[in-house]
Amino acid sequence: MEDTAGKVITCRAAVTWSVKQPLVIETIEVDPPKAGEVRIQILATGVCRTDAYALDRYDPTKAYPVILGHEGGGIVESVGEGVKSVKPGDHVVPLYYPQCYECKFCRNPKTNFCSKVRATQMKGVMPDGTSRFRCKGKQLFHFMGTSTFSEYTVVAEVSVCKVDTNAPLEKVCLLGCSISTGYGAVVNTARVEPGSTCAVWGLGAIGLAVIMGCKKAGATRIIGVDINPDKFTIAREFGATECINPTDYDKPIQEVIAEATSGGCDFAFECIGSVDAMRACIEACHKGWGVSTLLGMTAPGAELTAKPYSIVTGITCNGSVFGGWKSRDSLPKLVDEYMKKEIKVDEFVSFTLTLDKINEGFDLMKSGKSIKSVVIF
Amino acid sequence: MEDTAGKVITCRAAVTWSVKQPLVIETIEVDPPKAGEVRIQILATGVCRTDAYALDRYDPTKAYPVILGHEGGGIVESVGEGVKSVKPGDHVVPLYYPQCYECKFCRNPKTNFCSKVRATQMKGVMPDGTSRFRCKGKQLFHFMGTSTFSEYTVVAEVSVCKVDTNAPLEKVCLLGCSISTGYGAVVNTARVEPGSTCAVWGLGAIGLAVIMGCKKAGATRIIGVDINPDKFTIAREFGATECINPTDYDKPIQEVIAEATSGGCDFAFECIGSVDAMRACIEACHKGWGVSTLLGMTAPGAELTAKPYSIVTGITCNGSVFGGWKSRDSLPKLVDEYMKKEIKVDEFVSFTLTLDKINEGFDLMKSGKSIKSVVIF
Repeated sequence: MEDTAGKVITCRAAVTWSVKQPLVIETIEVDPPKAGEVRIQILATGVCRTDAYALDRYDPTKAYPVILGHEGGGIVESVGEGVKSVKPGDHVVPLYYPQCYECKFCRNPKTNFCSKVRATQMKGVMPDGTSRFRCKGKQLFHFMGTSTFSEYTVVAEVSVCKVDTNAPLEKVCLLGCSISTGYGAVVNTARVEPGSTCAVWGLGAIGLAVIMGCKKAGATRIIGVDINPDKFTIAREFGATECINPTDYDKPIQEVIAEATSGGCDFAFECIGSVDAMRACIEACHKGWGVSTLLGMTAPGAELTAKPYSIVTGITCNGSVFGGWKSRDSLPKLVDEYMKKEIKVDEFVSFTLTLDKINEGFDLMKSGKSIKSVVIF
Repeated sequence: MEDTAGKVITCRAAVTWSVKQPLVIETIEVDPPKAGEVRIQILATGVCRTDAYALDRYDPTKAYPVILGHEGGGIVESVGEGVKSVKPGDHVVPLYYPQCYECKFCRNPKTNFCSKVRATQMKGVMPDGTSRFRCKGKQLFHFMGTSTFSEYTVVAEVSVCKVDTNAPLEKVCLLGCSISTGYGAVVNTARVEPGSTCAVWGLGAIGLAVIMGCKKAGATRIIGVDINPDKFTIAREFGATECINPTDYDKPIQEVIAEATSGGCDFAFECIGSVDAMRACIEACHKGWGVSTLLGMTAPGAELTAKPYSIVTGITCNGSVFGGWKSRDSLPKLVDEYMKKEIKVDEFVSFTLTLDKINEGFDLMKSGKSIKSVVIF
């Protein structure tokens, strides 16, 4: 194998030239990692809704052209000066929620947010303010600090975590976002208790991971909520005890659920990014102790509305990103749970595609036919 | 002393004949307690904002004429059949949040709500659907299950709690609502931690009780927020380390607080009942771990709005009524804390009035000149 360390690598990547355009497979140049950076050969990546938002309606970085992708798995190709936590050959998962262990967030056990590289990550550049990607003479922006839709990517050391070499990267890449997000929301944020009644809005990958977590936590009743009944079979396979379609009822779904559960759920989860579903999720909770956990990424400017009396009389509203997991501490444990078959991962992959078919992955996700499409490089 | 047990008692009461009218001191008739009920000679009552709401804009029972009042202290005059927890001569505080020990709420440690007499309490009647009050041949409705603006009242046994006979009833009546509400929100609902930064919207009795609780919990920075700077001196006496007036700033007060606290408060409390203040209270919290606790009673139909991203990225929104205290279990302990001088009570009383001056109590409260006016019978 050629020693590429310190050299520019030429490889293929799916480039997003501008918003609302399909991705284009291009030959790009990837610079070597600078100090504190890691260059990764990506072997697999999930196609996730946050990538679709960046394509279709919303990119917090508003920086194009860009290489999207944030659910990746790969092997460290080379490391920049001072990098100690990973070395060439390590199997790794890039992390859009980094963990620096130093910032005030990392030092606080209540949150998994990390501010270390946030400002530059949101601008689509590396911590030094520049990009490591070029195509046709143009700089390409990074995305979420990960940019996994490329055969090679460069990330900050704080944004990468070593995982068990025996774990299949084309599976555990999904622990880089969706599965961890839903599962962690149950165990870290909502803290579902045995015997609970739960409801889950949105039966995509995150919703299914929530259902999996609720079942594992001992919930006795798990109600899946989605306007696409095609998702009900898989939801039941993951642990939903019943599934309901809001469009089947004349009254608000929160009232339907409250009546069916003697007053409301103990725990409810919003996994769509709809403020209407968030309101329903809050109002479907039981007075006095219901916990409504919001996970969805809403459109910019969207406003959540709720009856204040719901909160004052004891419904708690909380939320989390990446399931509340401190990312570098937790990912190896999540991979371990997967390897011990304590949590599902394989079951989330409905389609496996090659890089040139990546647009099909988005189409499948949007059609509701895929839980997750995984792209193999 | 005449034995009045089993007889109708004729006494004075402050009657509210209809909404937006001053209270009128009338001679009323109070029936003996039926089975499971307790007749109390009220010796003192606080004048509270919830009473003012029932006068001015909002009565959840919409039942007039009515005897308001829910912060009382008195002595049991007689008890109905089957009453075991109190006996004639006991010093008691009536409870608008009862505790029956039997309903699904009472059996759940997460809430202090009790559903036992809720339906009839909301209709302004006793659990059997009738009233114990008459005036000029008309039935008077009960209020909040307590109706303490009368020399004698009748309450359900679940709505009354025996307290230490040595405790002055003209002081501990305030533990029947405002002080317990604010103090409990700190220790039971928000669970303020030592070293925290807190902000408190509204420097009335509940807000001051929150400040007292935050100080007792070891908060190192307590920011009082009110548009009436006349309240700042007393807020500082209760423990506020600084006070700010939103009308002094061109930008939203949540931004002012976020800047002054390196990103936001650890704990914030809304003690007004304004959805604008609730939004500010949520947005003034620190990303990742801030807890926003809502206590205020808003106008009917008012809607809380917030950025969903605030919740998703880790601000928790919760609330409580009567401070989350299981009322009959907790009130004796709160009285005990007062008697040991671990919590303030005397300091909340700014004015002591006689029953015929009760309208002045409302005027003083609305003018912001009084923390609490206490009426002595």
